Amino acid sequence: MAGLNLIQQLHKILPENRVLDTNQLSERYSHIWHMDQSLIALGVVLPETTEEVSQILKACHTSGTQIIVHGGLTNLVGGTETNADQLVISLERMNQIEEIDENSRTATVQSGVILESLHTALEEKNLLFPLNFGARGSAQIGGIISSNAGGLRVLKYGMTRKLILGLEAVMADGTIISSTKKIIKDNSGYDLKQLFIGSEGTLGIVTRAVLKLEEAPSSRNAAYLAVDDYQSVVRLLKFFDQGLAGKLSGFELIWCNSYEQMTSTSDAVRPPLPYGYNYYILVESLGSQIEQDQTEFQNLLEQVIEKEMALDAVMAQSPSDVEWFFRIREDVNNLTDSMTHDQHFDISLPVALIGDYIEECYQKLKNIAGIEQVYAFGHVADGNIHFMIGKEHLKDDLRLKINDIIYTGLKEIGGSVSAEHGIGLHKKDYLNISRSESEIALMKTLKASLDPKGILNPGRILA
Amino acid sequence: MAGLNLIQQLHKILPENRVLDTNQLSERYSHIWHMDQSLIALGVVLPETTEEVSQILKACHTSGTQIIVHGGLTNLVGGTETNADQLVISLERMNQIEEIDENSRTATVQSGVILESLHTALEEKNLLFPLNFGARGSAQIGGIISSNAGGLRVLKYGMTRKLILGLEAVMADGTIISSTKKIIKDNSGYDLKQLFIGSEGTLGIVTRAVLKLEEAPSSRNAAYLAVDDYQSVVRLLKFFDQGLAGKLSGFELIWCNSYEQMTSTSDAVRPPLPYGYNYYILVESLGSQIEQDQTEFQNLLEQVIEKEMALDAVMAQSPSDVEWFFRIREDVNNLTDSMTHDQHFDISLPVALIGDYIEECYQKLKNIAGIEQVYAFGHVADGNIHFMIGKEHLKDDLRLKINDIIYTGLKEIGGSVSAEHGIGLHKKDYLNISRSESEIALMKTLKASLDPKGILNPGRILA
Repeated sequence: MAGLNLIQQLHKILPENRVLDTNQLSERYSHIWHMDQSLIALGVVLPETTEEVSQILKACHTSGTQIIVHGGLTNLVGGTETNADQLVISLERMNQIEEIDENSRTATVQSGVILESLHTALEEKNLLFPLNFGARGSAQIGGIISSNAGGLRVLKYGMTRKLILGLEAVMADGTIISSTKKIIKDNSGYDLKQLFIGSEGTLGIVTRAVLKLEEAPSSRNAAYLAVDDYQSVVRLLKFFDQGLAGKLSGFELIWCNSYEQMTSTSDAVRPPLPYGYNYYILVESLGSQIEQDQTEFQNLLEQVIEKEMALDAVMAQSPSDVEWFFRIREDVNNLTDSMTHDQHFDISLPVALIGDYIEECYQKLKNIAGIEQVYAFGHVADGNIHFMIGKEHLKDDLRLKINDIIYTGLKEIGGSVSAEHGIGLHKKDYLNISRSESEIALMKTLKASLDPKGILNPGRILA
Repeated sequence: MAGLNLIQQLHKILPENRVLDTNQLSERYSHIWHMDQSLIALGVVLPETTEEVSQILKACHTSGTQIIVHGGLTNLVGGTETNADQLVISLERMNQIEEIDENSRTATVQSGVILESLHTALEEKNLLFPLNFGARGSAQIGGIISSNAGGLRVLKYGMTRKLILGLEAVMADGTIISSTKKIIKDNSGYDLKQLFIGSEGTLGIVTRAVLKLEEAPSSRNAAYLAVDDYQSVVRLLKFFDQGLAGKLSGFELIWCNSYEQMTSTSDAVRPPLPYGYNYYILVESLGSQIEQDQTEFQNLLEQVIEKEMALDAVMAQSPSDVEWFFRIREDVNNLTDSMTHDQHFDISLPVALIGDYIEECYQKLKNIAGIEQVYAFGHVADGNIHFMIGKEHLKDDLRLKINDIIYTGLKEIGGSVSAEHGIGLHKKDYLNISRSESEIALMKTLKASLDPKGILNPGRILA
C-alpha cells in the first residue's frame, strides 16, 4: 500500500464509516469528564475484529504512526489524551459478549464490552464477574484489563489480574497473540497475558478476554463500626478476616471529616453512626446462606462490642440498608460537589502504617495555603487509600507541593504512588518513588523489545 | 578479574567452602529421586545473599558460562538436570525467614526456605501460607515461585502467582531487580515480578520474596461422594461452590480404578465408600466457625442425597477421618508402588470436557501393548488431571505413543500439556500443543531480550 497516506490505507482495511479523519472529530472527545472538548487527533478507527486491529497496527507500524487506544474514556491518569499526530483506535464496536459458559464458569468477551453490560448479562445466570467500581457504566473490559482495575471487592476476589484466564492482544507490529483458553492452570511456558494486564496499552492492544466467573453470592451483610485509634482498625480487620473466613468482601475505612461530609448532603446518605469518632469502618460479607450468615455476622458484631474492640457499631437490617451504607462510601460526588478544584490520590502502603502516614499528611496539608478540603478514605484492607483535596486554584506550584506531601514518604515505607489508577501521563514524574532505577530500566527494555518504534500509547508510564 | 578462570573468580566472591569444583560433587545430586547419582557439573556455588548471586552471575555472564539453578530438587520436568559445562547455583543456604509481619500478614523469605519450614513457623502465629503439596518437605520457595506451583488448595487460594506480593530476582547480567513491597495493590508500571514467576529460572534467579499470608482456618470438613456419570461431577462442583461460598477449598476427582488401588494397600487408606461407582469425589471446606461449618457441610450433603445428586456420600466425623480421607488422595505411593516403570501427566482442560477426554484416553491406552496400569485422578475443579501410567519397559517408542494419546487432543479443546509441573526439558516437544507459534516467538523475544547470552537455565521451556 506504499504511496497511499495512512488514512487512505485505513480505508482499504475498514469501511468508510469506520474511519474518521481529522475533520470528523467534533462529536468525539478524549475523556467522559470533558465531553465538551472535541477530540484532537489524526483520525479515529473503529475496528470490529482482532484481525482488523492487526491490520491497522501493521499499517501504523510501517508508517511509524503513534496510536492511542480509546475504551470507556474513564482513565484517571491521562491515558486517553491525544495530539494531532496520533491515530485513535476506539474499541467501542468490539462490544460482543461472545459466550457465557456456565459449566466452565467463564465469559469470553470482546474488549469493548462495558462492565455493567456484562454484569447484567450474568445476573440471570446467577454468575458474577466480581470487579465493581463507580465507572462500571462506562468502563470497558479492554481498559479494565490494561489498567488492572481494582475497586470494592478486591479483598475477596482480587484485582483484574486474578480474574483473567485468557487473553487476545495485538502487538505493535500487528502480530496477534491469542491465548483464549478457559483453564485456570497453565504452566506451559511464560504466562504472556501478564505482559498486557496493567501495562496501560503500551505493550499491546487487548482485543478479547476469557474472564473467570464466580458463583453469585446470595447473602450480603454490612455494618459500620467506629473507633478512635488506628490500631483498632488493624485489629478489627484481623478479627473479621478470621471470623468470616472467605466471606469478608469489604473493609473500607473513612476518616472522620470525610465521613461527616459524605453523610451530610442528603437524607439518602444520612449517618448510620453518630459523629465524634476518629474512624468509621464499613464491613461487608458475601455468602450463600442467608440466615446463617446474618446470625454469624451479628454474633461477630456482638463480640466486637463485648470485647470493646469498637466504640460503636450498627448492622444493616435490610438490603436497602446495605445500599444506604454503600451509597455513603461509593458516591464520591458528596465529596467533590463541595470542591472547586480537586486533586485525587490513590496511594498504597503497608496496612499497619496507614494510620500514622495519613495523619502526617493531614498535618502537613493543613499548613499549605490554598487548600480548602482534605478527605481521606479507602480500601484499607488492601492498603489502598484515596485522598481528595479541594483547592482554591489549579496552579502548578500548589499541585506539586501537594504531590510532594502525599508521595515523597512512600518510597521509604515501601508504598506506591498508584494502587489502582496507573501511571499514565500524569504520574510519570513520581514513578521513581514506587520503582527503583533497575526496575524502570527493565520496563524500558521490555517496551523497546516489544514495541521498538514506540507507537503504542507512547509516553504512558515511561518517559 | 580477567586472566582467572571462572572457579578462581568465584573464589574471590565466596569463601572456599561455598565453591565446590568438579571434583567435590560426589555427595551432591540433581534430583531427590536420584540421590545415588553424583552430580555432573562444572561446580556448585552456595551463595547466602542476593548480592553474592549477582556477583556470581556477573562473572558467568562475562565468561558466557551456563547456569543451572538448584533448589529443593523436586522438579518433575528435568529442570535441575546438568551437564559438565554448567555451573550450579544452589540456593540452599539462602534459607532465612527474614520476617513474619502479623499486621501486614506477609512473610519475607529467602528463596532457599523449605515450604514445610515456613508452614511450621507460621502455625504458632495462626497464619497460613496456603500452598501445599506432597513435596513440601523438600521444595524451596524459589523453585516454587519459578515453577508457579499449585497443589491441593488452588481452588480456594490460587496458585503461587496469586500469593506473591514482592520479589527480588537477579537477571542474567547480574542486575538485581528488587521489589519487596508488602502491598497488595501496585499499579505503578509493569508488574515485573510476573516475568520471574513460572518462567522456570530462565529469565532471572529469584532470591527473595514477600508472600501473602492468610488467616489460618479453624474448621475443616471433608466428605467422599460417589457418582456414575461425569455430568454429576460438574453439577456437584457448582452446588458446593454455591453452597459453601468462599469456604470450598478442595474438590478432587478419582476415577474408580484409581480409587480401588489407592484404598487397597493398607488399613490406613481403607475405602470410605464401597467400590462399584464410576467416580469418587473428595470435597473439603475450610472455615472459621467449627460448629456452624460442620452443620452447614452436613446439610449440604443431606441435600445432595435427597436431590439424588450423588449415589453415595460419607462425611469425615473427626480430624483423624479428614486425615484418612486425604491420605488416600495424597499418598501417590499407593499407586506408584504397584508400578515398575511409571510415566506421569499433569494436563489441564475445560472442566466440562474432562469426563469425555479422560474416557477416550483410557480407551486408547487400553489397546497399547506394554501398558500395565492407567490411573487418573486430579484437581477437577481446577481442570487439572494427573495420569500415572505403569509400563513394562522404558523404551522411547512406548513413551512417545502414550504422550501422543494424552497430549494431542488437548490443542483442539484449549487444554494444556502442563497445568502445574512446567515444561522444563522433558515437555518441550509438546509446547506447541499448549501455545501458538506467535506465543512461542514472543517467549523467545523475551528470553533474547532479558538473557541475550542464554546462560540462565538454558534449554528449559524453549528449544
